[in-house]
Amino acid sequence: MARVAIIGVGHSKFGKRSDASLRELAFEAYSDALDDAEIESSSIDGSVVCSATHYDKQRSPAGVVAEYLGLNPKPTFNVEAACASSAVGLRTAWSLVSSGLHKAMAVVGVQKMTELASRDIQELMGRAGDVMWESPFGTTMPAYYAMYATAHMARYGTTEEDMATVTVKNRKYGAKNPKAMFQKPVSIEEVLKSRPVSTPLKLFDCCANADGAACLLVANATKARKITDRPVWVAGLGLASSPMALAGRRGPMTSFEVTKNAATSAYEMARVKPSEIDVAEVHDSFSITEILNYEDLGFARQGKGPKLLRDEDTELGGRIPVNIDGGLISKGHPVGATGASQITSIVQQLRKEAGDVQVDGAKIGLAQNIGGIGMYAAVSILKA
Amino acid sequence: MARVAIIGVGHSKFGKRSDASLRELAFEAYSDALDDAEIESSSIDGSVVCSATHYDKQRSPAGVVAEYLGLNPKPTFNVEAACASSAVGLRTAWSLVSSGLHKAMAVVGVQKMTELASRDIQELMGRAGDVMWESPFGTTMPAYYAMYATAHMARYGTTEEDMATVTVKNRKYGAKNPKAMFQKPVSIEEVLKSRPVSTPLKLFDCCANADGAACLLVANATKARKITDRPVWVAGLGLASSPMALAGRRGPMTSFEVTKNAATSAYEMARVKPSEIDVAEVHDSFSITEILNYEDLGFARQGKGPKLLRDEDTELGGRIPVNIDGGLISKGHPVGATGASQITSIVQQLRKEAGDVQVDGAKIGLAQNIGGIGMYAAVSILKA
Repeated sequence: MARVAIIGVGHSKFGKRSDASLRELAFEAYSDALDDAEIESSSIDGSVVCSATHYDKQRSPAGVVAEYLGLNPKPTFNVEAACASSAVGLRTAWSLVSSGLHKAMAVVGVQKMTELASRDIQELMGRAGDVMWESPFGTTMPAYYAMYATAHMARYGTTEEDMATVTVKNRKYGAKNPKAMFQKPVSIEEVLKSRPVSTPLKLFDCCANADGAACLLVANATKARKITDRPVWVAGLGLASSPMALAGRRGPMTSFEVTKNAATSAYEMARVKPSEIDVAEVHDSFSITEILNYEDLGFARQGKGPKLLRDEDTELGGRIPVNIDGGLISKGHPVGATGASQITSIVQQLRKEAGDVQVDGAKIGLAQNIGGIGMYAAVSILKA
Repeated sequence: MARVAIIGVGHSKFGKRSDASLRELAFEAYSDALDDAEIESSSIDGSVVCSATHYDKQRSPAGVVAEYLGLNPKPTFNVEAACASSAVGLRTAWSLVSSGLHKAMAVVGVQKMTELASRDIQELMGRAGDVMWESPFGTTMPAYYAMYATAHMARYGTTEEDMATVTVKNRKYGAKNPKAMFQKPVSIEEVLKSRPVSTPLKLFDCCANADGAACLLVANATKARKITDRPVWVAGLGLASSPMALAGRRGPMTSFEVTKNAATSAYEMARVKPSEIDVAEVHDSFSITEILNYEDLGFARQGKGPKLLRDEDTELGGRIPVNIDGGLISKGHPVGATGASQITSIVQQLRKEAGDVQVDGAKIGLAQNIGGIGMYAAVSILKA
């Protein structure tokens, strides 16, 4: 398979962006990525827009984004896999370039969420669960993940303190990320005392809805080498699916089979083992999600995720630093932008441009998303 | 670029399908395609689901479709480009296979529209126009295309009879298509006397909202040759974009630059000229759209589209038969399914399996979609 590199990354400020529309958020990330790659827009053959639906009045967002970015008459379309949308966007752009159809593409993850009331967002998010068998019964994302948390606590003795430790870690690093929605550290006590959302998950165990965009520019090897002396290579791309309805899944609710399957594909394609990953961004939609992901990605054995936290293995300086850009818990979670945001952080690490949170000698990085309540998972492995 | 073939096609009945949900429509088309290819589902590596948003309560449809088709844990995601969604789905699946990432993929175009009131659908469709500058002013799809019709009439003397001729032709062939929503021919007088929708477009100038699904199975050359002795090769895939807001477009409203751009890419990739196309399916969302497409695809010179109709060139037996499966005007237009439906008809033609409407010696076929009010166009060229 022909190699594809990431040659530029861009990131808008995440948060409640009353100052910017969907198209303006996309522009902020795209122009940032062009500056980063030191190229003109004319070097890009087209755009893969990644946006989940219903949060914004605009339907078919690729059309308006491509127009606003000045990318007409080049190809564009929208790719959607809930919270994994722009990770799947990278996989799609990779295919368009690796196949030879295009030389360079922009992946533009973007979401405008905060114009809706929070309860409307929860209802909408629930409808990314099965509308025939589940969402009519009031299932929301916090409720789904609370069930996973409860099961993990019951089976492995995971505690509320363990989950709070995820938040404390991520908020600590989020304080160093100027693009993050929340830039203030929190203490274990503050997390434990925050108001219940869906027991055992409390407010600070949950990521926040946000507006934002992130952009990845990819190119084939020849073009990448011409444009940059610091290409980051896309080495592995795993994507898997799982029944949308929980009733269709097997086994205890203590892991996501879908992440394991996506990780297996990505590790095989990249020919690396979990122990070789130097730095990772994993989906921390809730604190418990990060713990499950440690295990499902092979960073810890089943049930041993909390031990990584207790041993500070996933801190900067630890064995495998995770979410040291602040994670979704600090950055906020503009659904369509999240995957590209994670990958942006990994690219900066592999280029040794991560500043205060640089992992010494980082050569191989991983980013992972769960889509919805686990009907999709995407794992991307990058190499310097 | 590594060759990719279509090895199986499937098609649900289109129409008001109160008997079938979104997932059931998808299953109808997918199982039909597996039967057609004479393979088991285990031969397929994953699915590209193509569905436009908001018509159905289910968000993130790929999840529920993949589950219902028995395609877990394989990769799945949704691709959207308004009315061109499943043509773009084919281009995406082509890339996934041609790049070597997968050996065989299913493209599943599906839409459930008729649970909504017709006026709600019109409002939703309008929001696939620019929600900042256009849709708040009440623009709907018939209104957009009526402007194009008026401009073509004023500049080239195109008549309401010319447009009615498109409907009469397509409904005549639709009567032979058991999957079509409307299977009754209509006369010129009936079209001209049907109630005004947006002058000069009348009811019978417009395609109908519908429920339906269509499926394309694609494979790399090795796998295709193992599975079938009648592969149809994907020779050219053009995709282009245009400003979403009409105010952003240049030139008179008598053609779609976006179709011309997509066609140029597809003809170049396939190394064929418009005159070499033996049979075509073009986007007849409205009768005028088919006339514009004749010109934009190079089947007729600018302004000379109506002459093709007057000379019966696009009839079965004519120089370039167009929409002889009935077109959107007969079949109905389940947005996400339409592109795959057109391509299914071209595949049947190139395999010499089109029955009553078989074009003698058809070797090269073309399918074309316009997305929304022309912010996307996709052109696919297939060879026997």
